[in-house]
Amino acid sequence: MKKSMLPDYKLIEIQILASGDILQIPVYTFQGKKEGKKVYIQANLHGAEIVGNAVIYELIEFFSTLNNEDINGEIILVPMCNPIGVNQRNLFFSTGRYSPYDGLNWNRIFWDYSHENINIDDFVRENMNFSKQDIQANFFDNILNKFQEKQNNINHRRGVSFSEHYRNILQSLSLSANYIIDIHSSSVSSIDYLYCFDYRQKSADYFLLDYAILMNKYDGNAFDEAFLNPWLILEKKLSQAGRNLIFDVESWTLELGSGMRVNEESVKKGFKGIINYLSAKKILNLEVVLPEKSTKFIPKNTIKSYYAIQGGIIRHRLKEGTKVKEGDMLYQILSFSKGSKMPFIIDIESADEGIIFDVSTNDTVNQGEYILGIFPHV
Amino acid sequence: MKKSMLPDYKLIEIQILASGDILQIPVYTFQGKKEGKKVYIQANLHGAEIVGNAVIYELIEFFSTLNNEDINGEIILVPMCNPIGVNQRNLFFSTGRYSPYDGLNWNRIFWDYSHENINIDDFVRENMNFSKQDIQANFFDNILNKFQEKQNNINHRRGVSFSEHYRNILQSLSLSANYIIDIHSSSVSSIDYLYCFDYRQKSADYFLLDYAILMNKYDGNAFDEAFLNPWLILEKKLSQAGRNLIFDVESWTLELGSGMRVNEESVKKGFKGIINYLSAKKILNLEVVLPEKSTKFIPKNTIKSYYAIQGGIIRHRLKEGTKVKEGDMLYQILSFSKGSKMPFIIDIESADEGIIFDVSTNDTVNQGEYILGIFPHV
Amino acid sequence: MKKSMLPDYKLIEIQILASGDILQIPVYTFQGKKEGKKVYIQANLHGAEIVGNAVIYELIEFFSTLNNEDINGEIILVPMCNPIGVNQRNLFFSTGRYSPYDGLNWNRIFWDYSHENINIDDFVRENMNFSKQDIQANFFDNILNKFQEKQNNINHRRGVSFSEHYRNILQSLSLSANYIIDIHSSSVSSIDYLYCFDYRQKSADYFLLDYAILMNKYDGNAFDEAFLNPWLILEKKLSQAGRNLIFDVESWTLELGSGMRVNEESVKKGFKGIINYLSAKKILNLEVVLPEKSTKFIPKNTIKSYYAIQGGIIRHRLKEGTKVKEGDMLYQILSFSKGSKMPFIIDIESADEGIIFDVSTNDTVNQGEYILGIFPHV
Amino acid sequence: MKKSMLPDYKLIEIQILASGDILQIPVYTFQGKKEGKKVYIQANLHGAEIVGNAVIYELIEFFSTLNNEDINGEIILVPMCNPIGVNQRNLFFSTGRYSPYDGLNWNRIFWDYSHENINIDDFVRENMNFSKQDIQANFFDNILNKFQEKQNNINHRRGVSFSEHYRNILQSLSLSANYIIDIHSSSVSSIDYLYCFDYRQKSADYFLLDYAILMNKYDGNAFDEAFLNPWLILEKKLSQAGRNLIFDVESWTLELGSGMRVNEESVKKGFKGIINYLSAKKILNLEVVLPEKSTKFIPKNTIKSYYAIQGGIIRHRLKEGTKVKEGDMLYQILSFSKGSKMPFIIDIESADEGIIFDVSTNDTVNQGEYILGIFPHV
Repeated sequence: MKKSMLPDYKLIEIQILASGDILQIPVYTFQGKKEGKKVYIQANLHGAEIVGNAVIYELIEFFSTLNNEDINGEIILVPMCNPIGVNQRNLFFSTGRYSPYDGLNWNRIFWDYSHENINIDDFVRENMNFSKQDIQANFFDNILNKFQEKQNNINHRRGVSFSEHYRNILQSLSLSANYIIDIHSSSVSSIDYLYCFDYRQKSADYFLLDYAILMNKYDGNAFDEAFLNPWLILEKKLSQAGRNLIFDVESWTLELGSGMRVNEESVKKGFKGIINYLSAKKILNLEVVLPEKSTKFIPKNTIKSYYAIQGGIIRHRLKEGTKVKEGDMLYQILSFSKGSKMPFIIDIESADEGIIFDVSTNDTVNQGEYILGIFPHV
Repeated sequence: MKKSMLPDYKLIEIQILASGDILQIPVYTFQGKKEGKKVYIQANLHGAEIVGNAVIYELIEFFSTLNNEDINGEIILVPMCNPIGVNQRNLFFSTGRYSPYDGLNWNRIFWDYSHENINIDDFVRENMNFSKQDIQANFFDNILNKFQEKQNNINHRRGVSFSEHYRNILQSLSLSANYIIDIHSSSVSSIDYLYCFDYRQKSADYFLLDYAILMNKYDGNAFDEAFLNPWLILEKKLSQAGRNLIFDVESWTLELGSGMRVNEESVKKGFKGIINYLSAKKILNLEVVLPEKSTKFIPKNTIKSYYAIQGGIIRHRLKEGTKVKEGDMLYQILSFSKGSKMPFIIDIESADEGIIFDVSTNDTVNQGEYILGIFPHV
Repeated sequence: MKKSMLPDYKLIEIQILASGDILQIPVYTFQGKKEGKKVYIQANLHGAEIVGNAVIYELIEFFSTLNNEDINGEIILVPMCNPIGVNQRNLFFSTGRYSPYDGLNWNRIFWDYSHENINIDDFVRENMNFSKQDIQANFFDNILNKFQEKQNNINHRRGVSFSEHYRNILQSLSLSANYIIDIHSSSVSSIDYLYCFDYRQKSADYFLLDYAILMNKYDGNAFDEAFLNPWLILEKKLSQAGRNLIFDVESWTLELGSGMRVNEESVKKGFKGIINYLSAKKILNLEVVLPEKSTKFIPKNTIKSYYAIQGGIIRHRLKEGTKVKEGDMLYQILSFSKGSKMPFIIDIESADEGIIFDVSTNDTVNQGEYILGIFPHV
Repeated sequence: MKKSMLPDYKLIEIQILASGDILQIPVYTFQGKKEGKKVYIQANLHGAEIVGNAVIYELIEFFSTLNNEDINGEIILVPMCNPIGVNQRNLFFSTGRYSPYDGLNWNRIFWDYSHENINIDDFVRENMNFSKQDIQANFFDNILNKFQEKQNNINHRRGVSFSEHYRNILQSLSLSANYIIDIHSSSVSSIDYLYCFDYRQKSADYFLLDYAILMNKYDGNAFDEAFLNPWLILEKKLSQAGRNLIFDVESWTLELGSGMRVNEESVKKGFKGIINYLSAKKILNLEVVLPEKSTKFIPKNTIKSYYAIQGGIIRHRLKEGTKVKEGDMLYQILSFSKGSKMPFIIDIESADEGIIFDVSTNDTVNQGEYILGIFPHV
C-alpha cells in the first residue's frame, strides 16, 4: 500500500524495573486536517489478549494510505498498552490478567470521577440552562481538572503504587477523548462481541458484530466504565431535572477472538467494525456500511455461567457459537474421585436455552472452575 | 497438660480436585455446659499467614484442660481454613493470597447481606419498639434466611464458582455467631495489630495489642466486613430513628506477625489476647486482664503507604516498629538505571511522623512496588 | 457394556500437604487367569497432559468386559499419576510441568540403576553363559534389590525430597514390569507420535501411529529412559562380549494430542494402539492388527526446533501436520519494537524440508520462545 | 570519595520482548595501565539473589578512587546480569530461579567445552612438551574457537532458544577471563560461604570466608563448572601423562546472605574478600590480608539435607549458624493431618553433628519440602 501519511509517534515511560530496564508504551497519533473529535483506541490491557494489536497494526497501515483531509480530528492508537502484562509468562502461558504486585485485574484499576467527593447535583443546577455543547465542555473541564489535581497531590517521597501510576498514564491519554475503544479478547475461547452502555445501543450497530452485552451491572473501575460512568450519571441527573441529553461521548470494549491466539477472522471483523464506526462518527470521511441486521443485546445480569460441579476431565464439550436448548448435553466430566472405586462419567445438561458464547480453554477442572457461558434467549 | 475435655471434630469437604482428591477443612467445637453465645475463630485464609494455626493449636490444647463448666456457649475453631491457599507454592513461596481461578483476594469474596436487594428501613419500622434481644434475634433470622434462600437457589447443573462455594461453607459456619475472629498475619513483615469497627473500640482493648486500625473505609466483602456491615447499618438506621442500640455482635481481624513465619511471640500475644477477650465476653469463666494502656486507634484512611519511586535494590531500610519524624531517612534505592552510565543511590526521607508498622519482604523492587507503611501521629 | 471383571483398586498416599490433606494415586490392576508378563501404564505425569486419563478410562471399561482368561499376566493402570501436577493452576492454565518445590521437570526425576556405582561388566561375566530367561531374571533381581536397598537407607529424620519420594512410589509400581507405557501429550499443539528406543522399532509398529522419535540422545532420568537404559547397556555389553540378546523389556512414551485438551481422536488412537500392542505381546488374547504402513522413525538429534528471533505477535503460522519445503513461509512476527518508529512484519521461512509436528500454543512471544518443530525428510 | 577513574560502560541487548521493549545488561570495565590478567565478576543470575549487586556497586565506587596504575589487566563487572530473573514477580516474591520459558535453572544452562565432541587426549599429546603459558594459551584458543564456531552455525531462520542465546552473551564476556566470580546468595536463609574446585583450595582462603563447599560432585552446566571443568579435565589428563600443572584459571561462586534481602554484613564481607583475592592475584596493587584461620572445606557429597517428613507448620526451628549434635532437636512440625482427630506436634532430632548452614524461609511445608542443611563435622 502506498503511504501518504505517517502518524506522530512517541514512547511513554511506564516503569523503571528493578534491573534498571525501562518499559514504555508506543503512542501513534493521526491528526486530521480539520479539528474535530478525538478517539482513543488501545489494545492488550490483559496480557493474553493480543488480537487488538493486529487490528491496530492494520488500522495504522490503512490510515497511512489516507490523506489528512480524510480524517477529522484526532485518532490515538496504543497497541501493546500493558508491557508488564504482555511479557509475563508462566511456562509459555500468558498470565498477565492480574497485576503481579497487588493481584488487581488490570482492567479494574481505573479512576472514576464520580467516585470522588464531588457534587454532580450542583453541576446540574449551575449548567441546567446551558447548551449541550457548553455543558459537555464544562463537565470535561471538571473531570480533567480533578484528575490533574490528584496528580499534583502525589507526594514524591511516598510515591504511588504501580497500578495508580499506570492508570494515570493511560487515562491522561484518553480522558479527554470523545470515544474510547478498548480492544480485548476473551481470555478463554469465544465468539466476537462487544460491551455496550445504556443509550449508546444505536452506535453499537456500526461495529457490525452480532452480539453485545448490555452493561446493566458494573464491576467497577474497568477502563470503559471509569470513562463513561460520570457521563451516564450526569445524563440521568439532567433527565431527572427535566433536561434529556445524550452527550457525544462513548466507550466501547470489543471482545475479539480468544486469548493467546491471533484469529485472523477476528482481526478482520475488528478492523472493519472500527473503520465503520469512525466513519459513522464522521471522524473518517468514508462511506458508512448500514448493518444488515442489528446487534442483539444481552443484559449483563442475564448471562448464565457454568462451573464444574466437581473436579475431573471435561469431554465432549460443545463449542462456542453452538445454539442449545434446555436439557441438551453441554459437556461430560470424567471423574477419578477418590470417593469411588471405579471412574465414572457425569453428563451435564443445559439449564438454559440460548447460545454458548465462550468456553474455557482447559479440559482439566478443579471443582468450581469456569466451564462455559450462555447468552440466553437469543 | 491433663486433658479433661475433647472438642467435637468434623471434616467438611471443600473441593473435589481434578485428580479426584478431596480437600477438607477441620472444625473443632467446644460446647459449654450452659447455653450461651457463639464465637467463631478461623486462621490462614491467606496461604502465607500461618501464625493463627499455632494460636488455634494452643487454644485447643488449653480448652482441653478446662471443664465444660468453664465455657458458656460454643467455641468453633477452624485452623487451616483455606487448604487451596495454604498448599499453593511458587518455588518455596506461599503464594496463596489470590484465588488461582479468578484472581480474587481470598478475603474479598464474602457475602454481605446488606448488598442484597433488601429493605432495612422496613425492618427498622417493624422492629423499632421491640427489645434489643428480639431485634437482634429477628435480624439474625433475616440474615440466615436470606443466606439459606440463596443456597437453595443454586442451580445444580450450572454449579457455582469455587469462590462462591467456598465462602458459603465458611459463612454457614460463622454467620450465626456473636463474635468472629479471623486470624491473619501481615503478608509482609509487621508488628502485631488488629482491625476494629466503629462502636466496638472498648472491646478491642481486651486483645491487649498496642495498635488497631479503625475501619472507616471499606474494601468490600472482607470476612470481617461482610459479617458486621449489616449490623452497623442496622444500628445506624435505628439511631436515625431515635433508638440507640449496639448489638452484642462483633467482628475482628487480628494481624499477628509476618507471612511464612511462625513468630512465637506473636503466637503468645494472640493466644493471651483471645483468652482475655473471651473471658471479657463471659464465654470463658476466667479472670479478665485489664489492659494497662488502651489500644491506639489509627483511622484506616490516614495510614501512609510508601511505594518505590523507581526500580532498584533497597538498602538500609528502617525496620517495622521504628518511630520516625518527617525528614528521617527511611530507605535507599540502589539503581542501575539504563538511563544513567554510573549506578547511583537515592535517599528517601519520610514525609510523615509516626511509626513504621510494616515493611515489604523483598529488597528488589520494580517501580511502584510497596516499601513500607506508617501509622501517623502515634 | 456388560462388565464381567472388576479391577483390583487401591489408593496409595503420595503426599501429606501443609493443610493436612493427603494426596493419593489410584492403582487399578487386572489380573489374568494365567501368570504371565506385567505391563504398567500411567498417564498425566505432566499436569496439562490429560488425554491419557481418557485412554486409561476406556481401557478400564474395555478390560472390564473381558474374562480373566482373555488376559495373561498383569495389567496395572495409574491414571492421574501426578496429583500435584494435575491440580496446579495459574489462572486456568495447567502449569504442572515442573515441580514447584525444586523446579525439576516431573519427567526428569527418575532413578536409573545404571547411574549407581555398580559394575555391569561383572554381571556380564558372571551371567554370560546363562539362558536369556535367567539373565533377565537375575538382572531384574539386581535392579530391584538395589532399589530396595536405597529405600532402606533413607534416614527417617532427614526425610527425602518430594521428587525422590514420589519417584520411589511410581518406580516401586513399575520397575518389575516387562513393559511400561507412559502416556503424555505434547504440552503444545501436536500430531500424535511416540518415542522409541533402539532395537524396539519392530514393536513400535503395533501402536499404529505414523511417527516415532528414535531415542539417540538422552535427556537423563526420564521415566522411560530410567527404566530401559540399564537394559540397553546390558544388551550392549553382552553384545560386545559376543552374546546378542534383546530382552523382553520395553519402554514407551506416547504423545497423544495437545495440552489441556481431550482430543477424542487421540483418545481413540491411543486406545486402539495400546490394545493392539498388548495383543501383540500376548498379554491380551485378541487378534493383532498388522499395521498397513510401518511407523516412520525420526532420530531425535535431527529434529529441528524454531525459536522466535525477536519478540512480537505470531501471525499466519502453519499448523501441525503441514508438510513444508525449504523456503516455505512458516510464520510471521508482528513487531512493535521500541527500536523502530513504525510497526513491521517479519516473514520467517523454513530452513528445512519435512513435516511440522508441533506448534506452540501462544501467539505472543518473547525473543527465544519456542515456535514450532519439524520432523525433517519424512 | 574522590573519583579518579571512570569505568568503560556499555549496554548489551539481551532480549526483545513481545511488547517490543528491549532488556539489556550493563557491563562496566576497568582497564589497568599495564596489560595483565582478566577477571570477570557478575551478580544476580538468580532473580532473588541481590546482595552481589551491592557488592559490585561498592567495588565500582572503590575502583573509581584508584589510579589506573593500581590495576593490572582488566576487571569486568556485570551487576543485574539477568534482567528476566531480577524483574520476575509472583506477588512480591522474586521467583526468578528458573527460566519461565523452559523451566531450566538459570545456573544450569551454560556451555561446557568438554561436552563437545572434542579430543582432549590429542591436545595433551600435541602440547605435552610446551611451556605452561603456551599450553594455557593454546587451550584458551581451542575453547574460544569452538565457542565461536557454534555461534557461527546458528541458523538465523531457526533462531535459538532464549537460554542458549543468553548463555552465549554471558559466556562471550567471560570465557576468555582468568578468573570468574559469580556472586549468588542462598535462595533461603544462610550463612556466607563459597564453592571451591579442586586444586584451588589455597586461593579460596583469600576470600576470608569461614566455609567453602568443595565441588566433588557436579550438577552440570553451572556457570562456574562450565568455565573450569575443561581445565580440570586437561590438568587431570596432563597429570596422567606425567605433567603436573595447575593453570592460572579459577572459578568461584560466592554465596552471600539470603534471598530477597541485602544483608549489609554480607555486602561488606563480599567486598572485602574480593578486594583481597584480586590483590593476591596481583590484579590490584594492594596489600593482601593473610587470613587468620583458613577456610573449612566441606566436600559437597557429605552435606546433609533435611526435608519435611510430612506437611504442616514448622515451629522452633534452629537458625542458620547453629552448631548441633546428633539428637539435638532441630525443629517441630505442627500437623493438622486429616488422618488424626486432634492436631499434634512432631519433634525432629538431628541425625548429624555439625553446623546448620541454611534454613528454608517458609514455615509452611508440604511433605518433602526443604527444611535445612548441615555441614557435618565442622
